[in-house]
Amino acid sequence: MDLSFFTQKIAAGLAELRYGAAPEALYEPIRYIMALGGKRIRPLLTLLGAHLFTDDLGPVVRPALATEVFHNFTLLHDDLMDQAPLRRGQQTVHEKWNPNVAILSGDVMLVRAYELFFDVSPTLLPTVLRKFSQTAAEVCEGQQWDMNFETETQVSIPQYLDMIRLKTAVLLGFCLELGALLGGASAADADRLRQFGTDIGLAFQLRDDLLDVYGDAATFGKRVGGDIVSDKKTFLLLTAQAQAAAEQQATLAQYIGQPVQDAEAKVRDVTAVYDTLGIRPQTEEIINEYFVQALRHLDQVAVPADRKEPLRRLALQLMERES
Amino acid sequence: MDLSFFTQKIAAGLAELRYGAAPEALYEPIRYIMALGGKRIRPLLTLLGAHLFTDDLGPVVRPALATEVFHNFTLLHDDLMDQAPLRRGQQTVHEKWNPNVAILSGDVMLVRAYELFFDVSPTLLPTVLRKFSQTAAEVCEGQQWDMNFETETQVSIPQYLDMIRLKTAVLLGFCLELGALLGGASAADADRLRQFGTDIGLAFQLRDDLLDVYGDAATFGKRVGGDIVSDKKTFLLLTAQAQAAAEQQATLAQYIGQPVQDAEAKVRDVTAVYDTLGIRPQTEEIINEYFVQALRHLDQVAVPADRKEPLRRLALQLMERES
Repeated sequence: MDLSFFTQKIAAGLAELRYGAAPEALYEPIRYIMALGGKRIRPLLTLLGAHLFTDDLGPVVRPALATEVFHNFTLLHDDLMDQAPLRRGQQTVHEKWNPNVAILSGDVMLVRAYELFFDVSPTLLPTVLRKFSQTAAEVCEGQQWDMNFETETQVSIPQYLDMIRLKTAVLLGFCLELGALLGGASAADADRLRQFGTDIGLAFQLRDDLLDVYGDAATFGKRVGGDIVSDKKTFLLLTAQAQAAAEQQATLAQYIGQPVQDAEAKVRDVTAVYDTLGIRPQTEEIINEYFVQALRHLDQVAVPADRKEPLRRLALQLMERES
Repeated sequence: MDLSFFTQKIAAGLAELRYGAAPEALYEPIRYIMALGGKRIRPLLTLLGAHLFTDDLGPVVRPALATEVFHNFTLLHDDLMDQAPLRRGQQTVHEKWNPNVAILSGDVMLVRAYELFFDVSPTLLPTVLRKFSQTAAEVCEGQQWDMNFETETQVSIPQYLDMIRLKTAVLLGFCLELGALLGGASAADADRLRQFGTDIGLAFQLRDDLLDVYGDAATFGKRVGGDIVSDKKTFLLLTAQAQAAAEQQATLAQYIGQPVQDAEAKVRDVTAVYDTLGIRPQTEEIINEYFVQALRHLDQVAVPADRKEPLRRLALQLMERES
């Protein structure tokens, strides 16, 4: 079954959502950010998770959209906290309106996300809402750790991996578990799919770190080396700092935590340190480990292999791999 | 039954709540704002609403506390939006920590508020959550209207009443309806109690407007005339503007929307306009109308009158009336 079968259901469902009418300053920003687009990966994972177990995707669409509304709520508030001017090439909500509008519109988006679950059958609803709420709190925890790390001098690699797990991966895991539960999966299969999603999320975020340095600027869509320029504590930088000999430590210390005088030189010299230490193959190795581990969880799910094809294909697409 | 019977249950329940451990910057502000105190009126209304119909208040405590956590979430975000330095005489969260901490801690408080409902029986849970979510969105709408009104030149009295209904009254109405539903009330009685709570909320907010001008500074706990100094569009100011003759219009125009040069003179002269127009008795009249209407809804609830005594007593206390 083609992925477009699922993405069309999501697009149709999104087009039908109504967030509220008045006051416009509360609801127009929600329509605005939801219309900015994006790959809608989270609801797609939910539909694909459900489709492993059922052909009846009708009741899954609104809960799937809840994950997309929730994700956009986090983007809206995160952009404000990070003072980001742009989101998907357009003005962020706090720039186009103001910070107060961003706070309050975000708040009501979180409420609307919850509402999209309330048609779930009463027998499943408490479980689904407990898992969603735990995930939502963990995403907030991840964002707080991320902000803490900006000013902390010592961040360990396990701390970093836990931060991206909370901030990014657990929501992908929840999306799949949600789909599985709504599709009628056993608790064991639902849990396998949650782990599949979490591992894919970790691999995806680490790949994002890698592409910032080693990606093609044209296809990646961001300036290469942006993380290096801003001293972002990525897996690459933390690994380099942990492994650097005296000479490389000196190069890193010359740039990290210092005012940026020559951004190009900074990107070039820090990348040279990464190259010397073999940071790229090490990062590719851990990405691959998470990816293989993810597929192992998917393999164990008790449905025929052909049923898993769309989900496996999406995972490959997210990694931009052929097989 | 004494009100302290109910307030002790709330205090004990609050003391048992756990919001989360790490990161501390996310969870410590929640413990901080929840510990600032307050009259805990919302959970009290829920317990009293339930107690009309049942003696078994055990399962009502956590949902009742959800309303208090939600209320404090709105205070946390509102204080940030209003740039308020103090809350109950203590530093606000965005002042004690920073705006980002206030945004994110507030977000997770809203999640925690939802979680406190999840032990409600599966048959009632969808209804309760739908009503709570609608109320939560309405409270956000009320806050947005309130912010809009700051910069609008024309605000009508019906618009103002609708704003305070959304921002303050609907949550009190929900608290009572929640208690009634959990206590086993009929839908009709639950609706009567919602209306009772909403009307009490409107009366209470209008009384707050009145006390700002005509209250005793010592017992009111705020500076008398604060709303006048800040040009806040209260029921008193809007009524005065609607009824002022040319001379009083001139006095108001001399102060409203103008830089404050002499705050004392402003309070004195605007109050004199209010006195001339009889704004105080007119405000007392509408407060009384809402209060009487509230009690009429309570009278119609199909339980013995003595069962309603604690709730009636609380309503009188909120109005600081003897009977």
